[in-house]
Amino acid sequence: MNYRMVFNIMGKILLIAAMLMFPPIIISAASGASDLAALLLSALITAGIGGLLLLIKPRNTAIFAKEGFVIVALAWVLMSLLGALPFLFGGIFTSYIDAVFETASGFTTTGATVCLDISGIPHGIGFWRCFIIFIGGMGVLVFVMAVLPLSKERSMHIMRAEVPGPSVGKLVAKAKNTAIILYAIYFMLMLTEAIMLLFGGMSFYEAFTTAMSTAGTGGFMVLDAGMIGQSPYLQTVATVFMLIFAINFNLYFYILLRKVGVALKNEELHWFLGIYLTATLIITLNARSSFGSFSEAFHHAAFNTASIISTTGFASADFNAWPTLSKCVLLLMMLLGGCAGSTGGGIKISRFIILVKNGWNEMRRLAHPKYVHTLRLDGKPVQDGVVRSVLSYFSVVIALIVVSILIVSIDGRGVETTVSAVFACIFNVGPGFGAVGPVENYADFSDLTKIVLTLDMLIGRLEVWPILLLFAPSTWRKRSAYR
Amino acid sequence: MNYRMVFNIMGKILLIAAMLMFPPIIISAASGASDLAALLLSALITAGIGGLLLLIKPRNTAIFAKEGFVIVALAWVLMSLLGALPFLFGGIFTSYIDAVFETASGFTTTGATVCLDISGIPHGIGFWRCFIIFIGGMGVLVFVMAVLPLSKERSMHIMRAEVPGPSVGKLVAKAKNTAIILYAIYFMLMLTEAIMLLFGGMSFYEAFTTAMSTAGTGGFMVLDAGMIGQSPYLQTVATVFMLIFAINFNLYFYILLRKVGVALKNEELHWFLGIYLTATLIITLNARSSFGSFSEAFHHAAFNTASIISTTGFASADFNAWPTLSKCVLLLMMLLGGCAGSTGGGIKISRFIILVKNGWNEMRRLAHPKYVHTLRLDGKPVQDGVVRSVLSYFSVVIALIVVSILIVSIDGRGVETTVSAVFACIFNVGPGFGAVGPVENYADFSDLTKIVLTLDMLIGRLEVWPILLLFAPSTWRKRSAYR
Repeated sequence: MNYRMVFNIMGKILLIAAMLMFPPIIISAASGASDLAALLLSALITAGIGGLLLLIKPRNTAIFAKEGFVIVALAWVLMSLLGALPFLFGGIFTSYIDAVFETASGFTTTGATVCLDISGIPHGIGFWRCFIIFIGGMGVLVFVMAVLPLSKERSMHIMRAEVPGPSVGKLVAKAKNTAIILYAIYFMLMLTEAIMLLFGGMSFYEAFTTAMSTAGTGGFMVLDAGMIGQSPYLQTVATVFMLIFAINFNLYFYILLRKVGVALKNEELHWFLGIYLTATLIITLNARSSFGSFSEAFHHAAFNTASIISTTGFASADFNAWPTLSKCVLLLMMLLGGCAGSTGGGIKISRFIILVKNGWNEMRRLAHPKYVHTLRLDGKPVQDGVVRSVLSYFSVVIALIVVSILIVSIDGRGVETTVSAVFACIFNVGPGFGAVGPVENYADFSDLTKIVLTLDMLIGRLEVWPILLLFAPSTWRKRSAYR
Repeated sequence: MNYRMVFNIMGKILLIAAMLMFPPIIISAASGASDLAALLLSALITAGIGGLLLLIKPRNTAIFAKEGFVIVALAWVLMSLLGALPFLFGGIFTSYIDAVFETASGFTTTGATVCLDISGIPHGIGFWRCFIIFIGGMGVLVFVMAVLPLSKERSMHIMRAEVPGPSVGKLVAKAKNTAIILYAIYFMLMLTEAIMLLFGGMSFYEAFTTAMSTAGTGGFMVLDAGMIGQSPYLQTVATVFMLIFAINFNLYFYILLRKVGVALKNEELHWFLGIYLTATLIITLNARSSFGSFSEAFHHAAFNTASIISTTGFASADFNAWPTLSKCVLLLMMLLGGCAGSTGGGIKISRFIILVKNGWNEMRRLAHPKYVHTLRLDGKPVQDGVVRSVLSYFSVVIALIVVSILIVSIDGRGVETTVSAVFACIFNVGPGFGAVGPVENYADFSDLTKIVLTLDMLIGRLEVWPILLLFAPSTWRKRSAYR
């Protein structure tokens, strides 16, 4: 473990984190809100700690896969701990645990809230609350890479640990350029949505916070009721953009390169759209009686299915009151999540495809022991290592869910609430069912539960391994027999 | 696919199935119950169909892995369909679907019931209802193998498809002798329990049906209230034997060979007992307030945890009314199940160990790409093929759970009931939570749900592949490129 290099990079990351607090500071100053001092103090502390870490000079700058994982995991933990300062100093929460929960929920684009008076948050901190979703959506480290000079090999180690999905694809030869391109696409899409929301009658503040929340598939809003009761136009805009942000961003790059054919042939996209449309149709028919007309039922089914499969967590209606079939469909969409390389959470569609195809292969192999068939995705063979890693990811996620459910159930809030709270956090969705339904929140849980769910959100966002590695003793050994 | 050979073996199996109806016929005749005609007619029909199938003479007697799976799957389906006849002819159920559900629930040792008046069943059919649990527990085909002459290779193909657990171990060189030894151990243990229950004041009929139910970890009883309200002595006897039948039977063979040391060193046994004791302790402390004293709480925690982890499904108290933590612990035990090579259901402890160890290895491999570590169980390396097959099993089970939940949720019985009904059936437990809790039953579900749950029970008992293969078109092709 190259501690000095890890600390050095952490210092740079924290300086950038402090810089990220400037947009909300400007908003706060411009709107004359009461939270300017809180934001300035937080930025100062973050920059101070970052500066101190930068004083540690590395003796050699080589980092390997292990360091990549540790940097990503530590960065997310520190960002959550320091990003919580504005909420604490601004008096939004009296408990630091609540503030960290809310911040981690933002960065990981979960969107689970412990805040009871959302519309009462001053505009600077209110902007910060949605801005961290935007940053977290594409990846804190991907942003850092877009800004900082890092060697090609170093960048890949970091990118592999942070970008969602079973395998990471570089768009262009240099990881730094890939990061810049991804961020540019991401920002332009967010801007487009914000403008369309402005046309629907939202204020600048509402439109940009909502657009940032959609872009990161986070689901925080500055309004107490969220998307419930908004105009059908605004809800439809949100539906479309939730789906857009749940699709692999590489496809948009192909479209920019005018390779529309390549983008449209993407296997994961077909599965994603197929699953989404099927789920929407089932819910429309099943929850039909909860609405005045068929088209209204379809509108709300389309909105809430998009919200759950993209793991955004907006709600246009209280889906907790829908029939069992609709709730079960939503529960499964929650598990599934968006496409790899999108800002959505869940286990990702491509992992699901690999699981299905592998199960099918295994069945044929049992019946015909000499049967050999390579697993293919988009026509290309998937390496055995990727398949094994997907299967392992799956089993470890289940183990984590099990442990989390056991701890959260100590609160005694009922099986449905307990299970769906853990699912909603580990898959970065936000609202669940029962007492964590779309018109409820996480405020009433115990501190222990909030800490476990905070860890679940981070573990889910970083797809298990980085955070778990922090708990492995071998990670912290100075020398290792294996590199 | 060697159709003629498959049909021929199916014929022999059905003749044995008809023979299996003789013990209940004797009980019926001896007790002067009203169900003698129903049982005789059922045996006659079963024997008749078996005889007709036997008329098909195979041209060659070679069978391969595929035929082994198909024989096992078809045998279980046919046994469920024909074993349901006594219930139908005896007037226990007016619906054939109900009768098949109850029979499959017995054979698969699930113990989920759709019968509302259990104590009203005549003794012949009442004995049959528990006898099929005893037969299904060790395996219908293992019984057939103990009786029929089959070549060594043929036997292994069948045994591999039916015996629970990730890999099958032969005790002695000949599979037939292995089957005989297993059945002898199984029968002696059942007899011991029955005698101990007789000492506790049960009648012969009650003691033997309860002992057979425990042996197969099924959970049917001839009393309406089951084990609720029985004496602490009877409940303690059941607790001990439920645990005994959830342990790999190979260990008892080692003990018979005076290799007690080998048996006690078994890694799966350590995990099983560790998990059981931890769960019992947690539930004792958590559900303490539901009982008069600490020792009473411990007694019921020990009983119901043993019942759920062994997937028997007896209840000594209404655990559906316990606190959330206790219910979640039980839900997870339901998933886990007993040891490989026992009569318990669930995913099996050894699969769980492989999952945990593989997740751990994968984590180290990510951090240290050159790290190579073989997964070991009982000190012996586990082959890559077994690991892959365990991971695939796991993912396919989840896919099946998903599909089942979707169909069952159409009934609109709430998320907790829906999810726990599917879990309780696919893992062969029996009672779940909510409307399928220990003092409830499955009678109110729709026919569609009952059919899906029946399939789930069969799929769960045969550990996924055999039944699924029945649905694969390639299974039914006469010639295959792969053998």
